[in-house]
Amino acid sequence: MPRMNTLPDFSDGAAFVQGRYLPIAEASIPITDWGFLRSDATYDVVTVWEGAFFRLDAHLERFFASCERLRLDPGLSPEGVTAVLEQCVRLSGLRHSYVEMIATRGQPRWGSRDPREAVNRFYAFAVPYVWIANAGQRERGLHLAVSGVQRIPAGSVDPRVKNYHWNDLTMGLLGALDAGSDTVVLTDGAGHVVEGPGFNVFCVAADGTLVTPAHGMLEGITRRTVIEMAHSLGLPLAERALPAAELRGAREVFLSTSGGGVLPVTRIDGQPVADGAVGPVTRRLVDLYWAWHADARLSRAVDYGPAAP
Amino acid sequence: MPRMNTLPDFSDGAAFVQGRYLPIAEASIPITDWGFLRSDATYDVVTVWEGAFFRLDAHLERFFASCERLRLDPGLSPEGVTAVLEQCVRLSGLRHSYVEMIATRGQPRWGSRDPREAVNRFYAFAVPYVWIANAGQRERGLHLAVSGVQRIPAGSVDPRVKNYHWNDLTMGLLGALDAGSDTVVLTDGAGHVVEGPGFNVFCVAADGTLVTPAHGMLEGITRRTVIEMAHSLGLPLAERALPAAELRGAREVFLSTSGGGVLPVTRIDGQPVADGAVGPVTRRLVDLYWAWHADARLSRAVDYGPAAP
Repeated sequence: MPRMNTLPDFSDGAAFVQGRYLPIAEASIPITDWGFLRSDATYDVVTVWEGAFFRLDAHLERFFASCERLRLDPGLSPEGVTAVLEQCVRLSGLRHSYVEMIATRGQPRWGSRDPREAVNRFYAFAVPYVWIANAGQRERGLHLAVSGVQRIPAGSVDPRVKNYHWNDLTMGLLGALDAGSDTVVLTDGAGHVVEGPGFNVFCVAADGTLVTPAHGMLEGITRRTVIEMAHSLGLPLAERALPAAELRGAREVFLSTSGGGVLPVTRIDGQPVADGAVGPVTRRLVDLYWAWHADARLSRAVDYGPAAP
Repeated sequence: MPRMNTLPDFSDGAAFVQGRYLPIAEASIPITDWGFLRSDATYDVVTVWEGAFFRLDAHLERFFASCERLRLDPGLSPEGVTAVLEQCVRLSGLRHSYVEMIATRGQPRWGSRDPREAVNRFYAFAVPYVWIANAGQRERGLHLAVSGVQRIPAGSVDPRVKNYHWNDLTMGLLGALDAGSDTVVLTDGAGHVVEGPGFNVFCVAADGTLVTPAHGMLEGITRRTVIEMAHSLGLPLAERALPAAELRGAREVFLSTSGGGVLPVTRIDGQPVADGAVGPVTRRLVDLYWAWHADARLSRAVDYGPAAP
C-alpha cells in the first residue's frame, strides 16, 4: 500500500507494466502469461550511454520484425515504444542504462489453446547498464569455453527473432563456469561456433580477415556495428561458418554485445589465444565502438526533463 | 487493497507465490526472474480428477529430477510441495483441476551473470482442469497436422526436463490452425514424429503393434500410463522411431496428455486415418484411462477440509 506523500523510488530502475510505471522491484508479469508459461515472447535491448540511446532505430526495427515473425502485436507504434522507453529512463534518472522492450503472447480466455485468441502484452524496463564482462575481464580479456551443447538450431527456433530460449546457453554457461572459464560459446552440431549468452563472436583469422558466423545466431546490432566499423577501417571481413578449431588458432578473438560493446577474449578452453594478450585489432575496435557513441547519426539524447508518471 | 471482511475469491484458481496464496488473477512473477527473462525454469503438471490427485508421486519424482538436471532448488521437499499443491486445490475448491508446480532460477544480485549465484524460486497454482481437446473433438477425433518445424533437439535442450521452450511448438501450432487442423505434431528433422504441444503421440501400426517415439520427446506420465495399460491389456507395444509416413498409414492414432488422457486422432493433414473413425484400441484405452483413476494405488484424495490460508 503506497504511503501518502512518498514518491516511488525508481533509482534501481523503472518498468512499464500493463500501462503503469513501477519501480523495477515491484514490476511483475501475470504467472499465466504465455510469455512465461510457453516462453512465447520476443524482446530487444537498447542501451543508454552518457544520457543517449545508441542505435535505437536499429533495435526498434528488429523488435518490430521479431514481433511480426511471431505474430505478436505490442499494441504500440515505434514512436509509442520510444516514448515508453524514454519515460522509463527518465524516471530512473540513469545516464547509463540497459533498456528492455518485451512483447508477450498474453493469454486467451481460459481453456483455449489457440495463440491467435490471446491478447498480447507489452512490457519495458530501464535498469543500470549491464556489462557482460567486469572491469578486470575487459582488461585481461575473457576466458571463453567452447561448449559441447548445441545451440538451438534455426530449423526449430528462428534465431533472428530475439528470444528467451536460453536453456542451451545456460547449461553451457554452467559447464564453462564450473571449468573456470568466464563465459561460453555454443556450436551448431557440426563443429562451428555460433553464439554465446548475449553475444556474437568474431576472430581475426590467420590471414588477417575478420570472421564472424553467418548463420544460426542472432543478427546482433553490435555485430552489425562491428561489421560497419571494419568497413570504415578498411579491414577485410567475412561472414561465414567459423570452425571451433579456427577460432582456437586465431590471431585475436572478441565478442560483440550490447552489454559492453567489443569484449576481448584471450583464452579458449584454458589455452591462450595467440600470445594471450589483447590484440591490436580488438583494441582499435573497442576504441572506435565508444567513439561512435558520440556520432549524432547513431545516438539520440534522452530528455531527462520533468518526469510525469 | 483488500476490502475489510472480504475473503479473497479463489474460485477461478489459487496460486502460491513467494510464500503467499493468492487468487490466480493476482498471481505474478517478478519481471526480472530469469525464469521469464531466460526461460530458466522447469515445471510439472498433475491433475485432480473427482477430488483426487492422479499419479502425484510420478509427477513429483519427475519434477525433482528436472530440478536436479537444471541445478534448481525448489526449496521444498516432495512432502512440502505436496502440501502447497493440496492447499492450492483446497482454496480453489476445484474437484477437477490442473495443478502446476514451477521452479525458476530467480536472479542473482544485479549485474551478475552467474546462474549459480541466483536464489531459486518455487511457484504453484491450481486452476480448472484443462482439456487439450474439447468435447466435440474428443467425440469425432482430433485433426492433426505434421509440421515442418523441427522439435528442439535433445542435443540443445534435454527433453526429459519439462520446460517452457515452446516457440517451435507454438509456430507449428499456428501453422496447423491456419491450415484448419486442431493441433500439431513436430518432427525430428529426419522425418520422424516426436511430440506436440503438451502431448505424446501413439499409433496402432499396420501389424497391430502400438508404437510411440522413444527419443526426442518428454517422457510423459500419461505416456507411461498408456504403456502400462497396454501391458495390462496384453497389447504389443514398441518404443522406437516413428516415421511420419507410418503415422499417416496407421490403423489408429491417438495422443496422450495430462490434458485429457487418451485423445483420438482421426485425420492427419486433412486425410482420414484408416476409415476416419475412432478405433477400437483407442476406445479401450480411453475407457481404461478413466477407470484407473479409481485405483487407490494411483490416486490420492485431496483433503478439502477447512482451508486455512
